[in-house]
Amino acid sequence: MRAEILCIGTELLIGQTVNTNATFLARELAAVGIDLLWVTTIGDNLGRMVEAIATAMARADVVLLSGGLGPTADDLTVEGIARYLGEPLEERPDVRAHIEAIFRKRNRPLAASNYKQALFPASVDTIPNPAGTACGVYLERNGHVLMAFPGVPVELHEMWKHWARPRLAARAGAIIQSTLLRYVGIGEAALAERVAHLLEGHNPTVAPYAGDWEVHLRVTAKAATALEAEALMAPVIRELEAITPYYYGRDLENLPAAVGRLLASREERVATAESCTGGLLASRLTDVSGSSNYTIGGVVAYDVRIKKDVLGVSDAALAHGVVSEAVAREMAQGARRVLGAQWGVGITGYAGGGEGVPEGDAGLVWYAVAGPDGQEAAESSRFGEGTPRETAKFRATQTALALLRGQLLR
Amino acid sequence: MRAEILCIGTELLIGQTVNTNATFLARELAAVGIDLLWVTTIGDNLGRMVEAIATAMARADVVLLSGGLGPTADDLTVEGIARYLGEPLEERPDVRAHIEAIFRKRNRPLAASNYKQALFPASVDTIPNPAGTACGVYLERNGHVLMAFPGVPVELHEMWKHWARPRLAARAGAIIQSTLLRYVGIGEAALAERVAHLLEGHNPTVAPYAGDWEVHLRVTAKAATALEAEALMAPVIRELEAITPYYYGRDLENLPAAVGRLLASREERVATAESCTGGLLASRLTDVSGSSNYTIGGVVAYDVRIKKDVLGVSDAALAHGVVSEAVAREMAQGARRVLGAQWGVGITGYAGGGEGVPEGDAGLVWYAVAGPDGQEAAESSRFGEGTPRETAKFRATQTALALLRGQLLR
Repeated sequence: MRAEILCIGTELLIGQTVNTNATFLARELAAVGIDLLWVTTIGDNLGRMVEAIATAMARADVVLLSGGLGPTADDLTVEGIARYLGEPLEERPDVRAHIEAIFRKRNRPLAASNYKQALFPASVDTIPNPAGTACGVYLERNGHVLMAFPGVPVELHEMWKHWARPRLAARAGAIIQSTLLRYVGIGEAALAERVAHLLEGHNPTVAPYAGDWEVHLRVTAKAATALEAEALMAPVIRELEAITPYYYGRDLENLPAAVGRLLASREERVATAESCTGGLLASRLTDVSGSSNYTIGGVVAYDVRIKKDVLGVSDAALAHGVVSEAVAREMAQGARRVLGAQWGVGITGYAGGGEGVPEGDAGLVWYAVAGPDGQEAAESSRFGEGTPRETAKFRATQTALALLRGQLLR
Repeated sequence: MRAEILCIGTELLIGQTVNTNATFLARELAAVGIDLLWVTTIGDNLGRMVEAIATAMARADVVLLSGGLGPTADDLTVEGIARYLGEPLEERPDVRAHIEAIFRKRNRPLAASNYKQALFPASVDTIPNPAGTACGVYLERNGHVLMAFPGVPVELHEMWKHWARPRLAARAGAIIQSTLLRYVGIGEAALAERVAHLLEGHNPTVAPYAGDWEVHLRVTAKAATALEAEALMAPVIRELEAITPYYYGRDLENLPAAVGRLLASREERVATAESCTGGLLASRLTDVSGSSNYTIGGVVAYDVRIKKDVLGVSDAALAHGVVSEAVAREMAQGARRVLGAQWGVGITGYAGGGEGVPEGDAGLVWYAVAGPDGQEAAESSRFGEGTPRETAKFRATQTALALLRGQLLR
């Protein structure tokens, strides 16, 4: 079964509202095993709406429409459906009673325009709205189904859950299950090449995505039950999880959480010493619930004086340059020692270009990790000139976390 | 001029990714005075892509395409454009060199599939991508323009800002000018009431928006030239900027940047001591370009031992509780003294609930500021139980920055 989502509302076209209804319905369609092939958004314009409804009903088996069911003059969805069907609008007494009951409950006077929401073409069914005055529309033509919902998310969600989803799930007769696998330290193309034989598969499918300085593989299976879908996915997931050392976590477990899990399992803690990332590494580590079990704190050594006075970085190391392997290593050691943790991470780099940056060093970052048994590791990276500051900072924390993870896994 | 946005990517159709690129481009089109009439989303499917490009190029003057420019087999946008044009793909030596340079910089091996991103139909121009390997596509047919961007938001934003927006603004002629005014310490409804007489205006319009723990007023004018638009806006902006002490900055000048401007103008510097915000305050301060002139660094004192040993918080203060006015004040003083800055900011709080939190203290945060002439200020806030960790952290940094700003303005 092929579906199209049709979103109505000029507010979506001027960027005032993010189209979360489309994302919600997309996820829900996937969960009942219906393939969504098109999402179309148009404004409050009758001509374009009739055209879009006709196009969608011709190419999709299921058309889900959201928005434009309100009482004001620019709410045109029911009229658009009526024109598409070539039918006039008629008042539904049951819907009129529903609207009047809601206004009585809210103790608000009814405006004449509110009765507009009781008008529907004769041949459609209405979808009850337990949370508001805007009832939905259901119609079937030549085996193609259209359902129209209000744009208010909470009303759409309720009507979807209680009325639409059970009906569509029964029509579709299948469910789709999906898992996200996360990789760091390998590029999207290189990973895709390594799993090329799996990318050809049809059930489950495997698809690569570029994350933020990491790569994701999404494994998706279609089956009659969740259990069957999981059985289809299991061998593929096992194979993909074995891609070491790059694979690090599944679904919502991001890199700080995965590193935190390793630290917690060893009952060890980490301290950070950051220059160019300015505290972002400590902040990302402490975004994870439960992080106080393995994160002790850190020093943001933006000024070179703090590197020396607080972290104890030596003049000998600084002689190699503020951004150097020697300084990164002493920062990592200093974080361990001064803050009293088993693990220390040091980051020093030039986030932007600008004055004081030695020629050829713009964008250079050095990372170091120091551990409890004297182990140490260091590496460097270089950001391109156009890289925005916040992006470079985030990516630097990804690299530092991957380096720490590598040492934790040794 | 009529525009259509065409978003490519199966991840958008299974609800994995919220389509923020469409919202970004919609807002930007509005700002250059181009009417967006359709947003269409399709998956990684060549046939449907060629069809959607043809439909869009027939009905819209400007077609903006995002996604599908990556190196893997399911990235089909350039091939879709080539089929639409009826042209083969050819390698561009300049793009090939760009890709190789990026991989050299990142110290990563190039996979054969990466060279796919150097292939384009002969008759199109490429749009340079300063932040990644995926160059964009520009073409013009019968006065209709198509621009294709990668789906990675940061790359799309950069290419839009530096390459696409100036070209489209020049084509559009009539321009829309818009300025964002930023307020902190006052609610949206209270601010809207204060400026009610301006919210009725038509040119310029004034519209209130809830920001993240701050409030924005957007002033928008339409005119033939930027100069005329600015003349229309000037008296309204003057009136809105006079709303003290709440008004703090314009457009991209967020709260860390506004506070930084005040510090820089006094030639003074700030040091931070953070507990529950875990380094986010330091990170936000250092997100601002030029922040090394007024930000010296900070201590993330997640563990109570760091509060004592590194920042010198006294047992007497800790006797009031780890989250208390006394501890926040001594953290602010400790940051000043230990790190050697004129200003110190201390934050201590319970980001989540959980074990170890005294009854009734869940969500409590104390903030303190200490300054060069012995001035001090402290306040507290409390986050509701449902507040997500990252949200509470961000809001706490807003409150701390507003407190510091108040002391800098005294």
